[in-house]
Amino acid sequence: MARNRGLKEVESMMDVYGAFRAEEPGDDDKMHEECGVFGVWHAQDAAAMTALGLHALQHRGQEATGIATYDGDRFHIHKGLGLVGDNYSDAKTMAGLPGGHAIGHNRYATTGETVLRNVQPLYADFAFGGFAVGHNGNLTNAAAIRRDLVRRGCLFQSSMDSEVFIHLIAISLYSTVLDRLIDALKQVVGAYSLVALSQDGLIGVRDPQGVRPLILGRLPHPDGKDGWVLASETCALEIVGAEFVRDIEPGEVVVINDQGVRSVKPFHRTTSRFCIFEYVYFARPDSVMEGKPVYAARKEIGAMLARESGVDADVIVPVPDSGVPSAMGYAAESGIPYELGIIRNHYVGRTFIEPTDQIRNLGVRLKHSGNRAVLEGKRVILVDDSIVRGTTSRKIVEMVRAAGATEVHMRISSPPTTHSCFYGIDTPERGKLLAARHDVQEMAELIGADSLAFVSIDGLYQALGAARRNAADPQFCDACFTGDYPIALHDLADPPLTLVTKAS
Amino acid sequence: MARNRGLKEVESMMDVYGAFRAEEPGDDDKMHEECGVFGVWHAQDAAAMTALGLHALQHRGQEATGIATYDGDRFHIHKGLGLVGDNYSDAKTMAGLPGGHAIGHNRYATTGETVLRNVQPLYADFAFGGFAVGHNGNLTNAAAIRRDLVRRGCLFQSSMDSEVFIHLIAISLYSTVLDRLIDALKQVVGAYSLVALSQDGLIGVRDPQGVRPLILGRLPHPDGKDGWVLASETCALEIVGAEFVRDIEPGEVVVINDQGVRSVKPFHRTTSRFCIFEYVYFARPDSVMEGKPVYAARKEIGAMLARESGVDADVIVPVPDSGVPSAMGYAAESGIPYELGIIRNHYVGRTFIEPTDQIRNLGVRLKHSGNRAVLEGKRVILVDDSIVRGTTSRKIVEMVRAAGATEVHMRISSPPTTHSCFYGIDTPERGKLLAARHDVQEMAELIGADSLAFVSIDGLYQALGAARRNAADPQFCDACFTGDYPIALHDLADPPLTLVTKAS
Amino acid sequence: MARNRGLKEVESMMDVYGAFRAEEPGDDDKMHEECGVFGVWHAQDAAAMTALGLHALQHRGQEATGIATYDGDRFHIHKGLGLVGDNYSDAKTMAGLPGGHAIGHNRYATTGETVLRNVQPLYADFAFGGFAVGHNGNLTNAAAIRRDLVRRGCLFQSSMDSEVFIHLIAISLYSTVLDRLIDALKQVVGAYSLVALSQDGLIGVRDPQGVRPLILGRLPHPDGKDGWVLASETCALEIVGAEFVRDIEPGEVVVINDQGVRSVKPFHRTTSRFCIFEYVYFARPDSVMEGKPVYAARKEIGAMLARESGVDADVIVPVPDSGVPSAMGYAAESGIPYELGIIRNHYVGRTFIEPTDQIRNLGVRLKHSGNRAVLEGKRVILVDDSIVRGTTSRKIVEMVRAAGATEVHMRISSPPTTHSCFYGIDTPERGKLLAARHDVQEMAELIGADSLAFVSIDGLYQALGAARRNAADPQFCDACFTGDYPIALHDLADPPLTLVTKAS
Amino acid sequence: MARNRGLKEVESMMDVYGAFRAEEPGDDDKMHEECGVFGVWHAQDAAAMTALGLHALQHRGQEATGIATYDGDRFHIHKGLGLVGDNYSDAKTMAGLPGGHAIGHNRYATTGETVLRNVQPLYADFAFGGFAVGHNGNLTNAAAIRRDLVRRGCLFQSSMDSEVFIHLIAISLYSTVLDRLIDALKQVVGAYSLVALSQDGLIGVRDPQGVRPLILGRLPHPDGKDGWVLASETCALEIVGAEFVRDIEPGEVVVINDQGVRSVKPFHRTTSRFCIFEYVYFARPDSVMEGKPVYAARKEIGAMLARESGVDADVIVPVPDSGVPSAMGYAAESGIPYELGIIRNHYVGRTFIEPTDQIRNLGVRLKHSGNRAVLEGKRVILVDDSIVRGTTSRKIVEMVRAAGATEVHMRISSPPTTHSCFYGIDTPERGKLLAARHDVQEMAELIGADSLAFVSIDGLYQALGAARRNAADPQFCDACFTGDYPIALHDLADPPLTLVTKAS
Repeated sequence: MARNRGLKEVESMMDVYGAFRAEEPGDDDKMHEECGVFGVWHAQDAAAMTALGLHALQHRGQEATGIATYDGDRFHIHKGLGLVGDNYSDAKTMAGLPGGHAIGHNRYATTGETVLRNVQPLYADFAFGGFAVGHNGNLTNAAAIRRDLVRRGCLFQSSMDSEVFIHLIAISLYSTVLDRLIDALKQVVGAYSLVALSQDGLIGVRDPQGVRPLILGRLPHPDGKDGWVLASETCALEIVGAEFVRDIEPGEVVVINDQGVRSVKPFHRTTSRFCIFEYVYFARPDSVMEGKPVYAARKEIGAMLARESGVDADVIVPVPDSGVPSAMGYAAESGIPYELGIIRNHYVGRTFIEPTDQIRNLGVRLKHSGNRAVLEGKRVILVDDSIVRGTTSRKIVEMVRAAGATEVHMRISSPPTTHSCFYGIDTPERGKLLAARHDVQEMAELIGADSLAFVSIDGLYQALGAARRNAADPQFCDACFTGDYPIALHDLADPPLTLVTKAS
Repeated sequence: MARNRGLKEVESMMDVYGAFRAEEPGDDDKMHEECGVFGVWHAQDAAAMTALGLHALQHRGQEATGIATYDGDRFHIHKGLGLVGDNYSDAKTMAGLPGGHAIGHNRYATTGETVLRNVQPLYADFAFGGFAVGHNGNLTNAAAIRRDLVRRGCLFQSSMDSEVFIHLIAISLYSTVLDRLIDALKQVVGAYSLVALSQDGLIGVRDPQGVRPLILGRLPHPDGKDGWVLASETCALEIVGAEFVRDIEPGEVVVINDQGVRSVKPFHRTTSRFCIFEYVYFARPDSVMEGKPVYAARKEIGAMLARESGVDADVIVPVPDSGVPSAMGYAAESGIPYELGIIRNHYVGRTFIEPTDQIRNLGVRLKHSGNRAVLEGKRVILVDDSIVRGTTSRKIVEMVRAAGATEVHMRISSPPTTHSCFYGIDTPERGKLLAARHDVQEMAELIGADSLAFVSIDGLYQALGAARRNAADPQFCDACFTGDYPIALHDLADPPLTLVTKAS
Repeated sequence: MARNRGLKEVESMMDVYGAFRAEEPGDDDKMHEECGVFGVWHAQDAAAMTALGLHALQHRGQEATGIATYDGDRFHIHKGLGLVGDNYSDAKTMAGLPGGHAIGHNRYATTGETVLRNVQPLYADFAFGGFAVGHNGNLTNAAAIRRDLVRRGCLFQSSMDSEVFIHLIAISLYSTVLDRLIDALKQVVGAYSLVALSQDGLIGVRDPQGVRPLILGRLPHPDGKDGWVLASETCALEIVGAEFVRDIEPGEVVVINDQGVRSVKPFHRTTSRFCIFEYVYFARPDSVMEGKPVYAARKEIGAMLARESGVDADVIVPVPDSGVPSAMGYAAESGIPYELGIIRNHYVGRTFIEPTDQIRNLGVRLKHSGNRAVLEGKRVILVDDSIVRGTTSRKIVEMVRAAGATEVHMRISSPPTTHSCFYGIDTPERGKLLAARHDVQEMAELIGADSLAFVSIDGLYQALGAARRNAADPQFCDACFTGDYPIALHDLADPPLTLVTKAS
Repeated sequence: MARNRGLKEVESMMDVYGAFRAEEPGDDDKMHEECGVFGVWHAQDAAAMTALGLHALQHRGQEATGIATYDGDRFHIHKGLGLVGDNYSDAKTMAGLPGGHAIGHNRYATTGETVLRNVQPLYADFAFGGFAVGHNGNLTNAAAIRRDLVRRGCLFQSSMDSEVFIHLIAISLYSTVLDRLIDALKQVVGAYSLVALSQDGLIGVRDPQGVRPLILGRLPHPDGKDGWVLASETCALEIVGAEFVRDIEPGEVVVINDQGVRSVKPFHRTTSRFCIFEYVYFARPDSVMEGKPVYAARKEIGAMLARESGVDADVIVPVPDSGVPSAMGYAAESGIPYELGIIRNHYVGRTFIEPTDQIRNLGVRLKHSGNRAVLEGKRVILVDDSIVRGTTSRKIVEMVRAAGATEVHMRISSPPTTHSCFYGIDTPERGKLLAARHDVQEMAELIGADSLAFVSIDGLYQALGAARRNAADPQFCDACFTGDYPIALHDLADPPLTLVTKAS
């Protein structure tokens, strides 16, 4: 029955990998982290702690959020579209989430009323008890597994790849939650950091190569016994009063309950391949990832950029806010003054007037405006973190010129983004990536800059403390810059031609 | 792991049978039909036809509604809380439901934001294709089946008994949709009329004893080929321009597609036990059920009531609107004038002011008011269809006296409601039924009437054309009056004491 | 500056007299009462009492509602769109309306977010204190007065004719509230019943000819002192536990405060001209107006109709719900059986699917359906209260035929509606009135009836207890049937040609 | 009638001057600009232009917004609560605002459903035509004028001081719009910049001392004729493609229509007293005010602060975002490195969970977080623009210490805020101002800083280009720092004791 293509609603959201999302309103021409996760075991008000943690992780997903709690007897769940602050602001919602244990999830997702069933945490009533799971990343064989499970009689209720976890757990022949989970993990391939909550404890998992982050913290409890926190980034610890303990290791499963933290390593040892783009853009600057402070890393990348591709100019201007630390690093290295030549308007809503032709011709800049007093008559070096489609860069350059800049040199604190990510980052399909279709010179012309330069891949590695990139076995996942995909892309029926390309 | 009691949200909605619902705001002291179903194959605009049909069936469920369509390629679905007219009023919703084939569902259900996942039709993506199903009735072994399925690894996404259908279909070893469905039907026990939509056709099923109604109609299509309609009641035919063909028979499965209507009878022949309360109250008066016009049946029951328990009085007054036809029958038989002594306010919203003590003492009647000009100084016979908890009857009698009636005699066009329904009708638990705890004399005193009489069970059967009730094998399901439950109540852990048949 | 046409929003709602409203979605081809008013002085919870009273008057206006209370110190106000039951259902709203004195208003009005400022009661802070007023009716010189006031420097905040009252009061040179109000009343011309609330008392006014109704009731207060109620109809008394005292007289001003009820008659005595259409359709059947029970009056009109224009037939069928009492009167007089041949669907929302051509051709009847078991093969007399545009009548006749009627005779319990009302009733402009353009024979053909008859104007007067209509000085306002407008139409730039009295 | 206290709703919003607003949820311990205005004459799509301009002025008021347009024939208006981007995002709203001329307004105001009538622009239908007005500032004799107008019979529809303008215009004996407006202006006292729209043109006014800003821009129109823009700040010009022409002068009235820009100066010449706090905090950094770029001014103030109160430290850290330019100036002057030691979370909603005790004890910082990698072990100079109540400063200092700072020195780029503003800025009442109750040493202790210093008043004047403050006739309005109120506070029944204080 090949002609059946299933429920439209489902179909339209079930792109292989969920990664090729079309241009959306509000898209600001950035790659987007798809999720943030948080979990806590043994806290006085676990739901409130989780809400605070998710608030600190809001930059990892703004479209939807959910919290599941366990009170020692029952599970409770809330899922909603919108921001953390909007979802957990009323006493009634919080009162509906009692218990000392909780997990939570932020999601970057498409809008629409039907999406609620696609919000995490996922919850299932198993024969052995309740189980909630939230996941940051992407499974690269989810479609294949799903096909098998459907054939077997499993009914899927969402279009999320994460749902295969709970079906695999449900049908596992092992008896304990942990064994069933490991049984499931061994069947999936992908990049994932997950937090799960069962009556046996809070569980955290990082995929064998540790592409996505997950950290452990200790949370003092008034009763004197330790509570524990799992989170995507360290910036979620301070807000709840927890202290950093360590990164969860690649391939590690931790089970946290009243007996403490137990570590299991069910996978064969492989090389770590932490996502290099977390340093470039995704992570919050006050997070520390794999031992490196993100803010310092970004300043160092900016300094490397200045060394690699310096140019004579009057001012260094960051594209706010993502270009700020690297611009500061660039300025410090180059000695050229750092100035706020672009002002960001913090009040941009999701939508705005549908522009008439006249307005469209203005190249309206709702989010940024040029600071003429800084830019007029100046040779300007603009510093940004990346160029994805290039549409925003073009507008920014045009705006800076309109405000009187005599020269505009664009410097980017990452190598050209030539490949899509299939590991949990929302990137345009490859054909939409400016750097996949054009060389640097062409890109400079397309965005209207007098010159354009990217930090080199080796320069990036050096700024992060490596001597250079180890091409045979790179220290990071840098597939978006190199096409060197460390995890097999099973579901990809029509793989990108450059799948085997190793060098940028 | 006995201490786990599952997700609260689910738990709280999963009462065995879903039948013992507590007193709700807006409850007007009636039993409620829980669902209406509609389906159409081969119509120019199947979704609009289905919306119209559901509108005509709105009395069978006002809390939620859904439509699933099939356009020959994909399935499309809309579910929403509220009335049919509110859900299908905008062009965008209707444009999202293309196709020539559709099923729809009205639901009587509890309110709340989380209920959306409990709205039908249910949809599943099977290996063999999409499948949508809507169901009127109640399965009496759903909890047991569900328990088994969960043990097997099936994940439930709702608290509806209907969901077992789709899991049973999903895991069936048969290959065609029809065989899988019949495989599932043979495992469930209960009262149900269901409509289902697959790429192979529109399917209608009535349970082996035909407790709930389902009828077939023919719908002319501009292309000359017949289209077909399934509906809970005939009143849904006229509004779409269809003509009545026949009742679906008890235990019959019809498969409707471009080849026409095919009938399958997979069950052993049993006696029909159509719900007698459909005639008393549930069905719309302009429907014809099992060959009997409902309006005429109600007038005949009213006439029987006059013959059985006549009393001298000045006026016959119906309790609007449900008592109107039987009051007309009573008046015609008795020769006492029929007058509108109670006026109904059509504008009652769902909620109203929380009354202060003073207002509570007024015995405020938001829905009805006494027509003093008719009632003052009169001996009044009030005619209503049933007494459930008795709270409304008491208020009505008090109101009629307050408007000047000198005597108030209450006559009821059904026998005392002594038992709960477990076959798809929302009734209070037995302890809340006035007639389960009191004899007629006590009931008269409790509601404040000078006299009270119910039509006898045999009188009711005679009014419906039978010589008398066949106690050995009754012609109707009359369990709510007799406790004679024709379908086993497997899930009922704590069965009502009177589960064994006895006559009232 | 003739080219200025003012604020569009205002302009579009300021039709002279507000009477010529175009065809609206949801228009059911009836004339509509434009308002209901209620007031109470000295009650335990005046706002709740007023909400109940407005609920009973909901048929006089469903689009918006407001309540103003006075707690002896401050005034409090709530205005909202929608039904009474929807507006006063939460504790917070009611808590915001403290005090023992209140007035309330129901409004029939166009929809839209901006209309809130057009919802009554109107409130103003005068130099002498707060003043709230609600009004049922229409002023026929409001536009002229408004023009003068604007010239003088008064700023209008709504498009309601009622607003001239408060400006006239504001600029009056008299000192007491009552004197200022009477000063204002003497300047306006029109049909109005108004309730007003000031710190000096609750005030009720009926226009000099008493076109619109207003009644007085006594409300027992727990403290033993009498409370008082003003309401458009007596049906609002019972719901609050008040007893009827008397009609306010034409031209009477009553001032109610802790000293009791004081009556003032500031106008020259004129003949009473109570609106005859209140008996035909507007009032609730359980109200008593000017001493006549409305229900009995309607039955009597139906009987007169049977005497004047009897026809041989098998069944009398009312067009629900407005035709019910007159159909009962017709049936009693004619001896032909009364049957419910048309079933009303109570669940019609405001809007519904935009019909496709196929559906439009069905002549879909969302509100009514034919009861085939009653109609098939029968000669049917349909009884309705009036024909306005005729669109509904045509659909009803067609529906009754489609359900099998062999003959359809339409009988109308009012004379032909040939003229627009300018006294507070929403009627189409004259050109849209079927009876203004066609004689009875043509009308019968247009609506598709085998015969059509209206009660005569004299028959109507007789049914209401008069020997006949006194053409020189009619006992009622019957302008919609006769064009005999008893109150001058000052604002009407282009008066209807038949403004001069002539008999129908 | 002294006991009447008027309508509660009105009363509660009618604080004298509207200036003493209590602590609100979401209050971030800043003074708030109360309004932004924008106007355009002769644009292709004036409403869209105005929406863009208001978007650029969003920092001057986020609670409500309105646009009035004039299409040469009629006026059209939209008012709404919330952000500009949320109000003008749908085609329907914009289609309802046709015309080539428009004014718009952003408002900082309290929330609540009833506030809509308090949103500007105000509109009135005068005898001479329509008139819309929007206003930034505060009238200091509005209450007195209002009292007189009410006595005269004027009815107020809002609690805004601006409403006196339209009543004064309405009752003026002059004939032209301009003469009537000037007549009104001569009666009011206060700080105001207003834009008005009539059929005769777009009007802009600045109060005689020019306390609030208003600028003029030229907007090219595709037809070749000039269009004109009025706006609170220059940052609203660039977004619509307009070029800066000049500041409107203190006391100037400009009338703009198809004949161009006409300037009228109806007032006696007085000294300009532009609000000095616009430079310190209110204005957007890319605006140019009275010839001075705001960004450069802030950097200069920061440098002055470094010169006046330098301290040895390791890093300069701005309190984001308001402290950023002055921190940069401080760093440049002092040579100490500038680092982003505090990270701002951009996703803070209006509300958040009501904290439990545990969370409250955490001193949760939803908006900011400390960047440990920058702060740990460092001596930190924090730079902020002002201290109002001090609550935020205390939290910030505590957070910086918690992130490891060994010393925290706070430097403020304005003098101590010792007095409330009555000229259109929302400030706490005087008793709530930290600097009104404590000297600098006490303040340092209260906020927990190792040292605290403010720029001196003369230092501030010097940074803005003056030799020093001219105490006899200051060049700016600096009342919030000095208590030297340049405009009489007529309405202030109970003036601040320090009203006559001249030096800080």
